[in-house]
Amino acid sequence: MADNERKVTSISELGEFGLIDRLTNKIKIRNASTLKGIGDDAAIIDAKEKKVVITTDLLTEGIHFNLMYVPLKHLGYKSVVVNLSDVAAMNAVPTQITVSIAVSSKFSVEALEQIYEGMNLACEKYGVDLVGGDTTSSMTGLVISVTAIGMAREEELVYRNGAQKNDLICVTGDLGGAYMGLNLLERENRVFKDNPNVQPQLEGYNYILERQLKPEARTDMKKIFEELKVKPTAMMDISDGLSSEVMHICSDSGVGAKIYEEKVPMDNETKDLAEEMHINPIVAALNGGEDYELLFTVPIADHDKIRNHPDITVIGHIVDASEGTNLVAMGGTEIELTAQGWNSLKDEK
Amino acid sequence: MADNERKVTSISELGEFGLIDRLTNKIKIRNASTLKGIGDDAAIIDAKEKKVVITTDLLTEGIHFNLMYVPLKHLGYKSVVVNLSDVAAMNAVPTQITVSIAVSSKFSVEALEQIYEGMNLACEKYGVDLVGGDTTSSMTGLVISVTAIGMAREEELVYRNGAQKNDLICVTGDLGGAYMGLNLLERENRVFKDNPNVQPQLEGYNYILERQLKPEARTDMKKIFEELKVKPTAMMDISDGLSSEVMHICSDSGVGAKIYEEKVPMDNETKDLAEEMHINPIVAALNGGEDYELLFTVPIADHDKIRNHPDITVIGHIVDASEGTNLVAMGGTEIELTAQGWNSLKDEK
Repeated sequence: MADNERKVTSISELGEFGLIDRLTNKIKIRNASTLKGIGDDAAIIDAKEKKVVITTDLLTEGIHFNLMYVPLKHLGYKSVVVNLSDVAAMNAVPTQITVSIAVSSKFSVEALEQIYEGMNLACEKYGVDLVGGDTTSSMTGLVISVTAIGMAREEELVYRNGAQKNDLICVTGDLGGAYMGLNLLERENRVFKDNPNVQPQLEGYNYILERQLKPEARTDMKKIFEELKVKPTAMMDISDGLSSEVMHICSDSGVGAKIYEEKVPMDNETKDLAEEMHINPIVAALNGGEDYELLFTVPIADHDKIRNHPDITVIGHIVDASEGTNLVAMGGTEIELTAQGWNSLKDEK
Repeated sequence: MADNERKVTSISELGEFGLIDRLTNKIKIRNASTLKGIGDDAAIIDAKEKKVVITTDLLTEGIHFNLMYVPLKHLGYKSVVVNLSDVAAMNAVPTQITVSIAVSSKFSVEALEQIYEGMNLACEKYGVDLVGGDTTSSMTGLVISVTAIGMAREEELVYRNGAQKNDLICVTGDLGGAYMGLNLLERENRVFKDNPNVQPQLEGYNYILERQLKPEARTDMKKIFEELKVKPTAMMDISDGLSSEVMHICSDSGVGAKIYEEKVPMDNETKDLAEEMHINPIVAALNGGEDYELLFTVPIADHDKIRNHPDITVIGHIVDASEGTNLVAMGGTEIELTAQGWNSLKDEK
């Protein structure tokens, strides 16, 4: 956090108007649908013939992030991306976000600015407008709440409940990297605590560190689906781990699934570090979460359209509900999937 | 809080699916514009020819509420109302909300249910749909983030920047009550701490307690304006105190204002308790906040249309920017208004 402490302005020095101005003066409006952004009781969005999609996520210090490892700018970026990922999972285009932040009064204006800098960067990259929010105090930790708005024509929207028997189960990108990145950061932090003279060993793991610290939302897939002339029958983003998300789609669609361990795409860095840390790589993919890739199903008739696309991997297929949701392990054994979900509510670290 | 402790289910007992189901199974959809509510990556809203209005507020324990005084059900209700109030201030109709809650894992499922019960009650009263959200852990206090969506035709929307010289400045309802209600709760809490055998003296102050604990949003005004054939030139809700809001409208509209102490509507309970506690009642109205009434301006030509309406009081008029924003006190002295704004960021109690 040394970088955050160059210049320190207390929030009370600026006062209400000064702080709002300082945090929001770099915000640009990029969408014609944003009729009114920050500066009134509410923002105004022009939906025209489109449907409006809305999603929200709350990130709390010590649960979703640890300020020991996460630079504030990355935190701002990620808190936007996780919401855009939900919009992408509806096959909609993200257009606006609102942001609420609660901080201890010990937090400096410069620290808040870094969070906003990351948020602005995400807005720029994804062409999204920051149109409102709330900055307030917390008695203790940092809390970030982001709500994202997106738009799509009705016929473009993809729900979780449309998967049909024999559909192919696909994922974008690769899985397990964000979880292994977190394991690496936690390991190096423990080593550092034991001996502050030891330098952290992070070389060779850039990719998985970035997967953890600066994930991206697959907003590119909507266009790829259009180009491939494929419309997924069901889709969601992979935030809690592949296992939990496959179970969600199956339960909402009233079907079962079979996924194949050997097909689940994983980067070499993910596999190498998992081996080094005696973690089964498939566990990182199934239960690790935070990859923000998309999980979707397509009719088997579309196999030829997707099979050679570098961003898409077929990992299994939909079966009858009576067959359950199973992983076919390397040796051929079938293992029933279990949902981890909200680790954060189950045991507080 | 004795009532909260009748039955205590730990959040981890229910797990992800169980908790979502338990908190959301009473949620009803009331708006045809809600195409998809809870249960997918995002909610979907059909805006048709309307413009979509969006606003968000974050409430944190110890800053915005104290669980010592505030029943959880009231807290849930209020956290929805403060957002609907912002939608009403745009002259739009609130239609959907999303809710994010962060709690310590020591919080019980029953406690969370009480918050949701209050939220559902507010949704029922205001005809709003709860369409999504996030329930997660916090390391410490309770955090509630609500985002509200509303709709209006473009020509109905009222911004903060339209006030013109000579416009009348009006408020709905009465002011200062919520602040005096808070003072009463804090006083009785101090007495109780000094001597737990003393019963709190709350009788005779039902109105101001309700103003603090269970405020309402003036979503009724849109219809009243239509009936009176009046369209405000500028409007905002009174959440931070009359003084701060008058200054907002003046600064956004590039005008000044003169408001009259004798005209500011206050309930007798507000005045009585203020006198008893040696607080100048006008200070409660100017700087107290949380009344969630509407402050608006109308052309002077509309005076006859509004003068006899029981919900509307004219408290002053718009002047040239060069004249500043002033309160004309009882004796005729002019006092420059000052904005309190975010008390919460200035000094943490």
